[in-house]
Amino acid sequence: MDGSLREISAPGRVADPHEGISASELALATRNHGLPLEALHYDLTPPGLHYVLVHYDIPVLDADAWRLTLGGLVRSRLTLDLADLRALPAVTHRVTMECAGNGRARLQPRPVSQPWLVEAVGTAEWTGVPLRVLLDEAGIAPGAVEAVFTGADHGVERGVEQDYRRSLPLDVARGTRPEVLVAYAMNGAPLPPQHGHPVRLVVPGWYGMAHVKWLRDITLVDTPFTGFQQAVSYRYRQTPDEPGEPVDTIAPRALMIPPGFPDFMSRTRVVRPGPVRLAGRAWSGRGPVTRVEVSVDGGAFWTEAELVRETAHPWAWSGWHATWEATPGLRHLTVRATDAEGNTQPLTEPWNRGGFGNNLVQRVEVLCAPEGT
Amino acid sequence: MDGSLREISAPGRVADPHEGISASELALATRNHGLPLEALHYDLTPPGLHYVLVHYDIPVLDADAWRLTLGGLVRSRLTLDLADLRALPAVTHRVTMECAGNGRARLQPRPVSQPWLVEAVGTAEWTGVPLRVLLDEAGIAPGAVEAVFTGADHGVERGVEQDYRRSLPLDVARGTRPEVLVAYAMNGAPLPPQHGHPVRLVVPGWYGMAHVKWLRDITLVDTPFTGFQQAVSYRYRQTPDEPGEPVDTIAPRALMIPPGFPDFMSRTRVVRPGPVRLAGRAWSGRGPVTRVEVSVDGGAFWTEAELVRETAHPWAWSGWHATWEATPGLRHLTVRATDAEGNTQPLTEPWNRGGFGNNLVQRVEVLCAPEGT
Repeated sequence: MDGSLREISAPGRVADPHEGISASELALATRNHGLPLEALHYDLTPPGLHYVLVHYDIPVLDADAWRLTLGGLVRSRLTLDLADLRALPAVTHRVTMECAGNGRARLQPRPVSQPWLVEAVGTAEWTGVPLRVLLDEAGIAPGAVEAVFTGADHGVERGVEQDYRRSLPLDVARGTRPEVLVAYAMNGAPLPPQHGHPVRLVVPGWYGMAHVKWLRDITLVDTPFTGFQQAVSYRYRQTPDEPGEPVDTIAPRALMIPPGFPDFMSRTRVVRPGPVRLAGRAWSGRGPVTRVEVSVDGGAFWTEAELVRETAHPWAWSGWHATWEATPGLRHLTVRATDAEGNTQPLTEPWNRGGFGNNLVQRVEVLCAPEGT
Repeated sequence: MDGSLREISAPGRVADPHEGISASELALATRNHGLPLEALHYDLTPPGLHYVLVHYDIPVLDADAWRLTLGGLVRSRLTLDLADLRALPAVTHRVTMECAGNGRARLQPRPVSQPWLVEAVGTAEWTGVPLRVLLDEAGIAPGAVEAVFTGADHGVERGVEQDYRRSLPLDVARGTRPEVLVAYAMNGAPLPPQHGHPVRLVVPGWYGMAHVKWLRDITLVDTPFTGFQQAVSYRYRQTPDEPGEPVDTIAPRALMIPPGFPDFMSRTRVVRPGPVRLAGRAWSGRGPVTRVEVSVDGGAFWTEAELVRETAHPWAWSGWHATWEATPGLRHLTVRATDAEGNTQPLTEPWNRGGFGNNLVQRVEVLCAPEGT
């Protein structure tokens, strides 16, 4: 007991082989939440069903008092209020957002952090100003290589006290594919508190950690940012000491609306014999999804599903559906997506120490039982 | 493997003494979610932050096609659509709703079900038609003793396939304190899917299981209802075989907005030395909250907080606040509410087999550390 933050803020760890979910992982799971998978039904996820991951506390911010500063290596420093932002030409993008830690709790051994299974995803229409427009207005000074984004959320993580802060290379920050947004509306309404009210960054195609919520400052810098959320967390690593590779764009994933109805506790599904419609969504931040396949025998045999590409919304999930002729017995359904770059989903877990970018296929256990059994 | 539902739907159980949270409890925790405790700040909880507990799947219902039937022991059977319901005189009540299982995951041994810590609560303004008005319109036939409410959600629980169904005694169903609502709006907007769209029951002062979501039928019956959610689940029991007592109104509870800022993983809080404002909410379904006390030494010494009674909203939580002169060290904060009936919160767990009505005091671990440590 030396009174330092390290007393209450431990290094990252991996659970013991048979260790159940711990009290601290549960405390994260009861605050943050995923998409109930039946809500894959909606093209646009209602805000209360969209996944939420908040590192520290949800700040309580007054939209009237909010200011965004844009400084560092710029020709003229900017300070904008919400009216200034709304006065600029707005664009809207439909974006499927996914937590980089989605799938973590299925890993063996399990990295101890937010314990997602497969449900940390959602799709919304975000309205705001392209970041490029703000950068052009400020003017980029010579030598700038990255933009660093600071949120209003503050906490401690593995002994490091910090505001939540992430960077993007300038070519991404200024890019058009994707077009990065400084967003003030979600599905046509002001951002809800948990989604970044009043303003957040949206980086279509990237995992959620890049979409800095409660955005309050953008600073251009002349060397790559090495803050906690960039250089310590959100790296693909096998061991704690290697530098690892940065987590960035979303790996392909397909999810299925679990068919039939569930058992409350096991979440196993029940369907009746006969034709059963299987449907869901598929997405990738690395290229358009070009193929979705389903298997009803745990991955031994696959058939191609019908894909409904949303060409008007290149950063949003696509729909897919297939018909399954269900026969009595316990079945193991699964689905996998492949994108135009040839990226697909593995059938065995792609382990890494942070539990990031795990796009192992979903598995849905279904009992096909005649009525009345 | 006999193909019956019992294969995938086990009896209720209590975890082994050192058993961590299981995969099926986690699957419930990633779908259902609590109130992030900093959102106790809001008088009215934004819908996406209000706790949600869904037994089966969230039904996808078309508001235009929705009908409510009122039958059984009535003089004239009613069928109402949403326009019929909206044409009747509307009332609005501000209601604090809490899951009966709140606190379950803190019990030793732990009943295996939705693993709530303390956060399964929220407050909203619900608008709808008093149930009494609909019952008067249908006319109650002689012999009716209870009203049975059926939701559109369907699933299996401990081997029993069912629509979600609960009853109320007629005197409660027709009562004015509380006034039971057939509600179609939450905070002035149509109900979100997860809160019962398009119509739900609201029973102010009762735990959440009574507020039947996706309400589609009300049937008056001449004997007390013995369906699963009434006679099997939601009973206070010490052993699996006793009939137990029914779970009904909400026991008093106070919660604190965790002060300072958190560590991401442990959720332990950090504050600076000096005066720290402590604030939160307190409620009881059994009478107005009359006293809130806080302790900063784990419950050895208590001081009374200032209570801000919302007399205009007798079914909603009250605010409270106090000032804590924080000195360096690891502190254990707690708070307890007492209502006008003398009900209060225990300092040791009130165990029961279902993990219901557990209003053990909240405990918040706070490190008071000078800046820069």
